[in-house]
Amino acid sequence: MNRSLNNSKRPKNVVLLGSTGSVGTQTLDVIRALPDRFRVLGLAAGRNVELLASQIAEFTPSRYYAADGQELANSSDCRPVSLNELATLDDVDVVVAAMSGADALEPIIAALGAGIPVALANKELVVMAGEYLREAAQQGGTEILPVDSEPSAIWQCIRGETEKPKRLIITASGGAFRDRSWDALRSVSPEEALEHPTWQMGRKITIDSATLINKALEVVEAHWLFDIPYEQIDVVMHKQSIIHSMVEFQDGSVKAQMGPPDLRYPIQCALTYPERVANPTLSRFDPIEVGSLTFEELDSSLYPCFDLALDVAKRGGTWRAALIGADEAAVDLFLDGKIRFTEIGPVIERGLSVHQPIMDPSLRQLTEAASETANRIRTAISAVKG
Amino acid sequence: MNRSLNNSKRPKNVVLLGSTGSVGTQTLDVIRALPDRFRVLGLAAGRNVELLASQIAEFTPSRYYAADGQELANSSDCRPVSLNELATLDDVDVVVAAMSGADALEPIIAALGAGIPVALANKELVVMAGEYLREAAQQGGTEILPVDSEPSAIWQCIRGETEKPKRLIITASGGAFRDRSWDALRSVSPEEALEHPTWQMGRKITIDSATLINKALEVVEAHWLFDIPYEQIDVVMHKQSIIHSMVEFQDGSVKAQMGPPDLRYPIQCALTYPERVANPTLSRFDPIEVGSLTFEELDSSLYPCFDLALDVAKRGGTWRAALIGADEAAVDLFLDGKIRFTEIGPVIERGLSVHQPIMDPSLRQLTEAASETANRIRTAISAVKG
Repeated sequence: MNRSLNNSKRPKNVVLLGSTGSVGTQTLDVIRALPDRFRVLGLAAGRNVELLASQIAEFTPSRYYAADGQELANSSDCRPVSLNELATLDDVDVVVAAMSGADALEPIIAALGAGIPVALANKELVVMAGEYLREAAQQGGTEILPVDSEPSAIWQCIRGETEKPKRLIITASGGAFRDRSWDALRSVSPEEALEHPTWQMGRKITIDSATLINKALEVVEAHWLFDIPYEQIDVVMHKQSIIHSMVEFQDGSVKAQMGPPDLRYPIQCALTYPERVANPTLSRFDPIEVGSLTFEELDSSLYPCFDLALDVAKRGGTWRAALIGADEAAVDLFLDGKIRFTEIGPVIERGLSVHQPIMDPSLRQLTEAASETANRIRTAISAVKG
Repeated sequence: MNRSLNNSKRPKNVVLLGSTGSVGTQTLDVIRALPDRFRVLGLAAGRNVELLASQIAEFTPSRYYAADGQELANSSDCRPVSLNELATLDDVDVVVAAMSGADALEPIIAALGAGIPVALANKELVVMAGEYLREAAQQGGTEILPVDSEPSAIWQCIRGETEKPKRLIITASGGAFRDRSWDALRSVSPEEALEHPTWQMGRKITIDSATLINKALEVVEAHWLFDIPYEQIDVVMHKQSIIHSMVEFQDGSVKAQMGPPDLRYPIQCALTYPERVANPTLSRFDPIEVGSLTFEELDSSLYPCFDLALDVAKRGGTWRAALIGADEAAVDLFLDGKIRFTEIGPVIERGLSVHQPIMDPSLRQLTEAASETANRIRTAISAVKG
C-alpha cells in the first residue's frame, strides 16, 4: 500500500496541491533541483492561473486543477480534473498538500485512505481535523509526512526511536515584533508585520508568526501528528531559527534538528523520505557562521494571542475549526487595513464567543464551522468599518 | 545471537570491566538508580581492591577479576575468574568496557565474537584496534555501543537513518586551558590541567582534553565506529559541552544530541539500548537555563598535539597503537611532574620517531607496540630527568 516507501530508484510521481503559493513554488524548486528523482504528475492552484500555466509548461504534468474548475487555454496535453481525482491519481507516489484553506482537506483524506503518503504543509488542516487525518493514514497504512520546519524536526528526531518522547520542545523565532512591547504594536502596518526576521513565507503564516498564533497551531499540530499530550509540549524562544525543534526522550537525552531557515530542506526531506538526497542548490549548515544559538522563555504577555489560540485549540468538536476560520478572517482584515494588529486577538475572541460547537462533527461540519466563523467576523467588521 | 536487543523485560545481566574508575563508578550509579533493570553478573578492577570489595558486597556479582589475578578475602559467594571468562559468562547481556589500558582488548573481542554487545568507553582500544573490534562485532552479529558522550551523540543521531551521514561534527570543550595562550602553558601544574571546565572525568582523559589529544582520538574512534572517512569528520569548539556532537546527512539536514555534561546519560543510553528509561537521579536539560550555545573554530595553533595525534592516527599498521602508548607515557610523566605540559607533544613525537611499524599486525603486536613505545619513553625520560 505504502507507495512512496518502496525505495525503488525510479522517479517519484508527485501531485502538488497549491503549486503557486510560497510552499508550492519552493516544492517545485526542490523538484527542479533533483530532476532525476521526481516527476510532476499533477498540479493544483487557486486564482494565479498565469503562474499555473507556466508551471504546466515547465513540468508537463498530465492533470491539473485550477480554482473553481477553471480550464486553461493551451494545455491540451494536460487535462483538468477535480481536486479529489488529482490527489488519488493511479501512479501518484506522494501528494504535497500546500494549499491554503480547507478545500484540500477532503482530497488529502482520500489520498491517505488510498495509501498515498501526504507531505502536509497546511497545519490549519491538522488543527481542524487531526483525528480524521490520523485515522485516514492508519486505514490506508501510510504516513503523513510533515513539511513545516518544526514538525519535520520532531519527525526527524524520533526516527528509529522505539518509544514515545517524553517532551517536545518547539522553537519559536518570535516573529516580526519580537523586540517590541505590546503597546508599541497598536499602529504597526501590514508591511511591518510581513517583515519576518528569519523566514521567507506566505502572508498569512507571517502574520500568524507575529501574533504567535502560528506557534500555538504548531503545538496543536504536533499534538495530533505525534500523539503527544499537551502538557508534554513546550515552546521556547530561539531567535536564530537554526534549531527547528527538539525532542526529549524518556532517559532525558535530547535530540535537535538544525539547519538554515529554508523551507526547501523540510520539503525535500518529506519528498525523498525515507532517503536523503544531496541538493547542491541548498546552502550548508556552518556552525562557525552560526556562532551562537540562544534560548529564552516565551513571554506570553507579549503574545496574548498565543494563549488564546492554544486555549481554544484544546477544546473538542468544532472549536478548532472555528479558531482556524476566525484567525483567517482576522488576518485578512488586518492585511486589508480594516483592523489594527492589536485587534487580531480581540476580533478572534469575539468571533468565537458566539460559536455553537458541534461535538463529533462530520468533515463537512468542520469546514462549515471554519467558513461560517470567518464569514461572521468579516460581516461584523464590515458593518462597523465598511 | 544479539543478546541485549531482545527487548525482554527481565533485568539485563551486566559485566563491568573497570568498575573502580570514573566510568565504572558512574556505570554503577546508573545501575543503582535502576535496580529493576540490571543485575551485576561480574566486576573487574585494577589495583583498588578495597573499592572492588565494597562493590562486590553491594552488587553481589557471582564472578570478579582483580588486577594480576589477585583473590579477595570475604568474597566466598563471588569467585575470581580471568578477564576473558568474565567477559563471556553464559548469561551476560552486555559487557561494559571501562578499563584503562589494553588488558581489556582481548576479552572485549571475545565478547563481541560471542555475540555479546559491548558498551565501550575506552576509546584508546578503538584507536588501537578499530578493525579488529569491528570485525569481531560483525562475526558475532552484535554491536559496539558507544559510551563516551561524543560517539554516543553520533550513534543516537544516526538511529533510524537509512544512509551514511555526509559529515560528523564533533564538539570540543577545549579543556582546561582553552582560554590561555600556548606560551602561558609552560609552567602549568598537573592540578591546573586536571581542572576541566565542564566534565568530571578520569585523570588521563582530562589531560588528553587539555592537549586536545582526546579530541583527535575521538575523531579516529568515530572513523572506525561509524565507518566515515576522515575528510568527513570536523571538530568545532563548543565551550558549553551541551551539544555532544552533530551529524549532517546527505540532504544537508543536521541532527544534534544534547544534554547536561554528565557521562551517566550516555552510559545509561548504551546500557538500556534500544530502550530509553527514565532515571530520576539525572538532572534535566533546560534550554532556558542553558541560555546560549556557541560554536568557534578550533585554533590548532593553541593545540599542537591535536594535529600531531591525528596525523599519526591516520597511518596504518601499529602506528595507532604506538601513539596510544606514547600518549599514555607522556601523560603519566606530566602527572608525575617529570615533564612540562608543553613537553607532552614533543615527548610523544620523539617517542614515535623511532617506531618501526608493523603492517597487518596481530592483536599481540598491537598491544606490544603500545607498551614498548610507552616503556621506551619512560626509560628515556628517566635517563635524563631521573
